[in-house]
Amino acid sequence: MQPIRTNHAAAKQDCSFARFGEGRSLELQCGQSIASPVIAYKTYGTLNAEKSNAVLVCHALTGDQYAASSHPVTGKPGWWSLMVGPGRPIDTTRYFVICANVIGSCMGSTGPMSINPETGRAYGIDLPVITVPDMVRAQAMLLDVLGIPDLFCVTGGSMGGMQALQWAASYPERVFSAIPIATAARHTSQNIAFHEVGRQAVMADRDWMGGRYMDNDMRPLKGLAVARMAAHVTYLSDEALHNKFGRHLQDRNAPTYGFDADFQVESYLRHQGSTFVDRFDANSYLYLTRAMDYFDLAADYGGILANAFRDTSARFCIVSFTSDWLFPTEENRLIVHALNAVAADVSFVELETTGGHDSFLLDVPELFVTIDGFLRSAAEMRGI
Amino acid sequence: MQPIRTNHAAAKQDCSFARFGEGRSLELQCGQSIASPVIAYKTYGTLNAEKSNAVLVCHALTGDQYAASSHPVTGKPGWWSLMVGPGRPIDTTRYFVICANVIGSCMGSTGPMSINPETGRAYGIDLPVITVPDMVRAQAMLLDVLGIPDLFCVTGGSMGGMQALQWAASYPERVFSAIPIATAARHTSQNIAFHEVGRQAVMADRDWMGGRYMDNDMRPLKGLAVARMAAHVTYLSDEALHNKFGRHLQDRNAPTYGFDADFQVESYLRHQGSTFVDRFDANSYLYLTRAMDYFDLAADYGGILANAFRDTSARFCIVSFTSDWLFPTEENRLIVHALNAVAADVSFVELETTGGHDSFLLDVPELFVTIDGFLRSAAEMRGI
Repeated sequence: MQPIRTNHAAAKQDCSFARFGEGRSLELQCGQSIASPVIAYKTYGTLNAEKSNAVLVCHALTGDQYAASSHPVTGKPGWWSLMVGPGRPIDTTRYFVICANVIGSCMGSTGPMSINPETGRAYGIDLPVITVPDMVRAQAMLLDVLGIPDLFCVTGGSMGGMQALQWAASYPERVFSAIPIATAARHTSQNIAFHEVGRQAVMADRDWMGGRYMDNDMRPLKGLAVARMAAHVTYLSDEALHNKFGRHLQDRNAPTYGFDADFQVESYLRHQGSTFVDRFDANSYLYLTRAMDYFDLAADYGGILANAFRDTSARFCIVSFTSDWLFPTEENRLIVHALNAVAADVSFVELETTGGHDSFLLDVPELFVTIDGFLRSAAEMRGI
Repeated sequence: MQPIRTNHAAAKQDCSFARFGEGRSLELQCGQSIASPVIAYKTYGTLNAEKSNAVLVCHALTGDQYAASSHPVTGKPGWWSLMVGPGRPIDTTRYFVICANVIGSCMGSTGPMSINPETGRAYGIDLPVITVPDMVRAQAMLLDVLGIPDLFCVTGGSMGGMQALQWAASYPERVFSAIPIATAARHTSQNIAFHEVGRQAVMADRDWMGGRYMDNDMRPLKGLAVARMAAHVTYLSDEALHNKFGRHLQDRNAPTYGFDADFQVESYLRHQGSTFVDRFDANSYLYLTRAMDYFDLAADYGGILANAFRDTSARFCIVSFTSDWLFPTEENRLIVHALNAVAADVSFVELETTGGHDSFLLDVPELFVTIDGFLRSAAEMRGI
């Protein structure tokens, strides 16, 4: 028996919870629903009297509500602490920032680790499959609870960017501006393929136990670590890996001619795998990769992406990165074209970076300048 | 207990064997040696009286000696049957083609599945680590046995291309021409990273049993399948996947909102994983990925790649593919630059394809024309 290394579900959560009681449910795209859903969230800054300064920050696949405050499990700074905070581009002295853990995740919002009220046991893979529109619908329920009629801005990178696009499509009247970063209006075949590799890695672990590992006090740590390692390579770029690690050996002067982590990049990857499993749930990994795979905004609007944006009056700022081969500029440009087709107000910026898809999380000054400028201009228009 | 699905070691081999008896050993770069090595190989065509028409075809990571004849396990045509055969660019009516299973592999040459004469059990991971120079040294021993003084041409793609480069460096007097395709003179950090993911997937499988699964009649099928799936995505290109599968669903009209292979690309990948494990050994996968990781031709020549080619008088034809992001043109160009630096006779061709790294295995007419033309011209020079 492999013991549970960290029960992150039980980790002390430093956040707020919106608990929808009996009789309330979250309707899902698959036709099923989640009874009495819970949404865990963090807020930063203060909502103004006009309620006009709310910014919804949407997190990526393995992100969480701790965008600008330290993570309760790892103790690391928030994943977007360079972007969100006092004096940062998303300035918490000006804006009221909300960041909610997406439905299906594992940091307090309803997900596979949550107790299924019908059985009294963890959902595991009995939880219905979640989609990006479902995540956004849950966030809208949260805004209702918070008494926030509309968003000054909705933003996020990667899966967070998908949510930003979905917001503009699902709730055009509630979005004043949107900044989808390093994202796409549909998950590509290659990206589905990489996700499927990760899921198969999890499911190949005997400790996954058909998704019912929670009932047996087990966790598929090795499989999840492999999934993370595979994904992590895709978040970087060839150039970033070359610059950071090259072919440098780890703590040795000559190759050992063995299967230890001879190379620095191997050691780094193993570390990424092993730290990830301390903070993330394997079934959540399945659900959220699946949500991204199913994302195809055009498909929900008669196959024409522009139709998704027909009712929007939001200002858009689309950002892509030259080194991002997972969500390349080309995919971002398709969004711009669709917005142009409905004469939406859209700026498009392609930033030159070497950091790969992860560039949206990194210290990229041009990104901060871009977001800062866009938000200042939008705030002026909105009279904030 | 998971039964062995296919004992490919015992599959009827339709090939020849060079068995080096007692007292003969293969010296390895790691400082160890393999006693009484065996090399399994196939030949096609006839050696001419002058022994001047030998072409050594070197296979890639999961390839084998069946370049131009059907595979004894899968029954499929040889992996390079489009390139090698009567009337093909590597014309077996003109040339004597040799293709040997590399040391460390699992199709009959000494590898982890072979019996260690010292213990009477399969080597497993007790086999010393193999490098590309070791593979090439073994091939040179084979040529000695066959009485072939030198090669008219040595060629191969990917790891096969690494061997072609190594041949020119290790045995400059025995190489008249070389065609390294879709390769690199060193394995990049990103490529090491992807290989490490694959190895970790194998090792995460409990049936790997620390590499000693053979002793227990087990095989880490799931881990190896995941490794293959991860690698396979990298052999293709975003464009190829988009064109071939896009977001098309498999045998259904609407998503099932589950974890089945809803998308064609998932179904395809799972098939790639499950068929691979029928024909390949997991430990061999570890050894051969490791050999590629360690490949760094310049490092063995004082850090200057050109030094590796200082003694060569061979004609080179270097081929890269635009869609190959694993061994991109840039890496191939570094080889060209090194060859230029020693005033070697080198042609360089970058072919526009969408097939990704696997392009060297596909029906790419421009590739056939290139190889055919280069070989005809070289044959003329050699008086074949």
